[in-house]
Amino acid sequence: MKTQHQASISAYKADGFIGKYQRLVKDVVIPYQYSVLCDQAPDTEKSHVISNFINAGKALRGDQIPEDGFYGMVFQDSDAAKWIEAAAYSLSLFPDEKLEKTVDELIDIIAAAQDEDGYLNTYYTIKDRDKRFTNLQEGHELYCSGHMMEAACAYYEATGKDKLLQVMLKNMEHIYRYFITEKHDGYPGHPEVELALLKLYRLSGNPHSLELAEHFINIRGVDPHFYEKEKAGRDWSVWNNDPTDTDYLQASAPVREQKDAVGHAVRAVYLYTAMADLAASTDDKELSAACRRLWESITRRRMYLTGGIGSTVIGEAFTVDYDLPNDTAYAETCAAIALIFFGSRMLENEVDGEYGDICERAFYNAVLAGMQLDGKRFFYVNPLEVIPGISGAAQTHKHDLPVRPKWYACACCPPNVARLVSSFGKYAYGENEDTAFCHLFAAGEVSLENGMKFTCETNYPYDFEILYRIEKGGNLALRIPGFSKTWQIDLNGRKLSQTDVTPKKGYVYLSVSDGDTVRLTLDGTPRFQYASSKVPELTGKTAVCRGPLVYCFEGVDNQDDILSLSLRKGGALNISDGQSALPEGTVTITADALRTQTTDDADLYTDKAPVTNSCQAVAVPYYTWGNRGENQMRVWMDYQ
Amino acid sequence: MKTQHQASISAYKADGFIGKYQRLVKDVVIPYQYSVLCDQAPDTEKSHVISNFINAGKALRGDQIPEDGFYGMVFQDSDAAKWIEAAAYSLSLFPDEKLEKTVDELIDIIAAAQDEDGYLNTYYTIKDRDKRFTNLQEGHELYCSGHMMEAACAYYEATGKDKLLQVMLKNMEHIYRYFITEKHDGYPGHPEVELALLKLYRLSGNPHSLELAEHFINIRGVDPHFYEKEKAGRDWSVWNNDPTDTDYLQASAPVREQKDAVGHAVRAVYLYTAMADLAASTDDKELSAACRRLWESITRRRMYLTGGIGSTVIGEAFTVDYDLPNDTAYAETCAAIALIFFGSRMLENEVDGEYGDICERAFYNAVLAGMQLDGKRFFYVNPLEVIPGISGAAQTHKHDLPVRPKWYACACCPPNVARLVSSFGKYAYGENEDTAFCHLFAAGEVSLENGMKFTCETNYPYDFEILYRIEKGGNLALRIPGFSKTWQIDLNGRKLSQTDVTPKKGYVYLSVSDGDTVRLTLDGTPRFQYASSKVPELTGKTAVCRGPLVYCFEGVDNQDDILSLSLRKGGALNISDGQSALPEGTVTITADALRTQTTDDADLYTDKAPVTNSCQAVAVPYYTWGNRGENQMRVWMDYQ
Repeated sequence: MKTQHQASISAYKADGFIGKYQRLVKDVVIPYQYSVLCDQAPDTEKSHVISNFINAGKALRGDQIPEDGFYGMVFQDSDAAKWIEAAAYSLSLFPDEKLEKTVDELIDIIAAAQDEDGYLNTYYTIKDRDKRFTNLQEGHELYCSGHMMEAACAYYEATGKDKLLQVMLKNMEHIYRYFITEKHDGYPGHPEVELALLKLYRLSGNPHSLELAEHFINIRGVDPHFYEKEKAGRDWSVWNNDPTDTDYLQASAPVREQKDAVGHAVRAVYLYTAMADLAASTDDKELSAACRRLWESITRRRMYLTGGIGSTVIGEAFTVDYDLPNDTAYAETCAAIALIFFGSRMLENEVDGEYGDICERAFYNAVLAGMQLDGKRFFYVNPLEVIPGISGAAQTHKHDLPVRPKWYACACCPPNVARLVSSFGKYAYGENEDTAFCHLFAAGEVSLENGMKFTCETNYPYDFEILYRIEKGGNLALRIPGFSKTWQIDLNGRKLSQTDVTPKKGYVYLSVSDGDTVRLTLDGTPRFQYASSKVPELTGKTAVCRGPLVYCFEGVDNQDDILSLSLRKGGALNISDGQSALPEGTVTITADALRTQTTDDADLYTDKAPVTNSCQAVAVPYYTWGNRGENQMRVWMDYQ
Repeated sequence: MKTQHQASISAYKADGFIGKYQRLVKDVVIPYQYSVLCDQAPDTEKSHVISNFINAGKALRGDQIPEDGFYGMVFQDSDAAKWIEAAAYSLSLFPDEKLEKTVDELIDIIAAAQDEDGYLNTYYTIKDRDKRFTNLQEGHELYCSGHMMEAACAYYEATGKDKLLQVMLKNMEHIYRYFITEKHDGYPGHPEVELALLKLYRLSGNPHSLELAEHFINIRGVDPHFYEKEKAGRDWSVWNNDPTDTDYLQASAPVREQKDAVGHAVRAVYLYTAMADLAASTDDKELSAACRRLWESITRRRMYLTGGIGSTVIGEAFTVDYDLPNDTAYAETCAAIALIFFGSRMLENEVDGEYGDICERAFYNAVLAGMQLDGKRFFYVNPLEVIPGISGAAQTHKHDLPVRPKWYACACCPPNVARLVSSFGKYAYGENEDTAFCHLFAAGEVSLENGMKFTCETNYPYDFEILYRIEKGGNLALRIPGFSKTWQIDLNGRKLSQTDVTPKKGYVYLSVSDGDTVRLTLDGTPRFQYASSKVPELTGKTAVCRGPLVYCFEGVDNQDDILSLSLRKGGALNISDGQSALPEGTVTITADALRTQTTDDADLYTDKAPVTNSCQAVAVPYYTWGNRGENQMRVWMDYQ
């Protein structure tokens, strides 16, 4: 059984750092993304998402549609789904009649694009209805259904309106009929529907939804040659993907036998998320053990310091252990988001601070870096080193851009950030019948289904005091982050001794009563980080962190040259504030450093040992990088 | 006019280090490669080169040939050409009736494969004669002709036999008619014929050969869209190469306007070699200046410490300035060989020690590393860091193999090494009417066309005394390598003062008489090397060199773990000998080092500063790496 489960979307009203981000998503990201879906955003690649749905509806009614009635990627529908999901979460935080009306209208359009039998996908409905489910490898129909199921659940949770939910239950039954009743072979090329079906099951109680999720998870990789056979019986292709690359598709072996995180990182971790959810929901120890192995494969051998995962652009994929290049990193924003999904479901199997540590690492670094501070531009790719002239320029670095572009033809990451930020409370807070779990530190008001209520006051991640004011008591489980080697808890102003509050697997458990105040004080001292010497790219390097934030050094703060800069071994790291043209409250770190004298010498190689001068180097939080124009950036620095 | 020119193939009878390599090429490489050409080498990919020529001859006579009469790459013929060239040079060093007979027979086969009009190419002759010269971008006909012209010149030089020379003069006239007389558009997709035509001109005096070389060089890039037009008029392709990627093809601008070394590295540098040759031959200052710019682009911004060039596998190409990754390096053996060709021709424009320095850097490191010490296996790709588990395994590192394979389907590098080693004297020694130029240090007997004769005694690159015994005197120009900050010259046992022998652009000039002895003593102290801080990959790193040799650290000498090893700043570098299961005489270097304690801690990242213990690290010459099984290797080491 689940140790605890995610808080509902209405459980958390945010304030502080998270609250500001949620407001930014509401004020800027959601309206902007909607304008993109409508093809009304200026200077932006055409999206056509809503037109696709309108045209699909017309096609179903036999109305005339233009020849280019469908435009975009085969998975274009999912942009609408992710936008609705983000808007739903946002609506539950910030009621907004106008936005709700917009969503309702979009849902009407979507509903009209559903076929009588429940099938829903604009690409196939417009282009070729006979090809449905004949290209599971590339076709993304189940992926799009999954996202729309998530949207339906979110919108129902946020508003109580069930139109989209009914559409997606009907769609689920259609998929059920095809794969279960009619016993068609195959499983999703891009996992996503599995985790969505589990959400749909939890919300609706419909047993077909659970059965279908279990089916897709259990059948995966049992026949690793399924996609080859599928392709052999087909005379068309979307991208000519290789059906024999079963690692890319997480289909080399049944999921319970998979040992290493492989292939397309988002696909992989969406799958693992569903596996962890199912394992907790059904108490499946074997599946849970497989999830744990895959979790360790990622977090102990295949993850960047920022929580970025999937280190290569080739297939947007995991590679091999310890292959973590800084400059050619892929580390897709969506993959880091998926890692948070996975961590959150692992917490439902076992409450262990490690999961929160990783979720936090991914959120405050790899995910937030994906969005410009003004919410208007986005990174897919999150390298840990950018050198203009090489990054974005050399063939091997084309994907590592020095500044965020506006929108992408493949627009998966921006709405994914929006939905994660808007539903942050689900990941920050968990509950079971008698306990409130504070997995992540998130200021605001919390009211849980188990009756507990409290507020959290903090300027985390820039301040390390977290104050909980208990309105309705019970048991409080507080995560002690791995980064905080020292910490203190005060209950109603009285310091608790370490014997009172011995942490169990990274959590302290307190019984709290109405009116209590609990103050958790963590260690916010900036610290150096070092990588395992098994990572070739990182030998001789150090990084600077504070709390959950990874810092980086940008040219703009460091005389436009960070390559001749190294940190001083054991040097001081001092926090400062407000020097850097970054938003108020952003804490920067000044580090004792050495700068190599550059000479006019044109030599590429020399036997003259570098001469260095002492200096101070300025670091800024990684998530803020690339907000002040194109310039150099490095997370991992040389030190001497 | 040329400052001086390469010595003839018969000018140098090698001894010492080079002599051993030339004998290895004769005893092992040439016979092995011939067995490959005949498809008689065991466990080796099929070559079919000689069968292709036989079948082409049959096809011309109207005889029946099998349906798969042609096998291999479109440029398969060039393997035969490079082998003949290597065999020719080897024959001039080591007369061998049996080998000469084998070459003669092969030449008969080749001659029989030449069409009546002079055309010679087995791919087109067997597969489709109508497609001749319709795919200059991919077709490699001119490339193959170029290599065969080089072979013809070499074999005539070595043996005085002119059968192949006549074949290739006829072939040249055919090309001349097509491109000059009949004014067909276009220029070679893979430059090579240009430098070969200049060789052919020098040997034969045939003015068409010079005119054709000039034409191809001058017309290149004048119409950057030529290949697009060519493709538009064609319904077939060999590889579907992109005709708009004019950088890949060095066709973005006329050659005199090209500023950066771009595109496929071998193509680029074969072109630059021909340009430098033509510039020196015709006293073309503008062309010479373009060559100098391209030379600087390579050697000051785009070259590995080893002399390897072309840092990316994508297009086997140059990338952008300072993009020199160690682990994903391409650094094709053939490209380093081409750099020596280019340097040697630059020396004909201007005698400057810089050219010899680079030729030596490339030869002793990037080129020699291409061949296993036993002459039986070869690398195309010469990375500066190899970590088994990542190298050869991760998608981005597939090309960086930890051990040398036997032979390749695309077998350009092995015979290229063979022909360079066998003709080393041409690059080591130059002459003009009154001076002998010692560009590289190469033990053996030298007798030049200008009448000078001397022997050179040295164990270079492991010993740094070079003794010249003059038999027939004249002027002697000795290069003082850039690595040797101190040096001394003794004439007949008397030390010359620095005022007697002030070097001019890296050369000292001495007048020597019959019977004189000249002893040059260079500095062979091991030294640390540092890279410009503009190279992101190399900040905080140092490498160890001695003389022209770059050293590397392999796991086998260093407890199977070089990643936790760093060198001590300013530490000692001591030479030692014979510990390393490498051939006798190989000097290793022991360096003061620090080893990071590894813990059982599974953490990928930690805030615990690494704890180090003093130790000694063993470095071996880079060219010897990968000869003792699969293990880690690093050139650039952390230091602290």
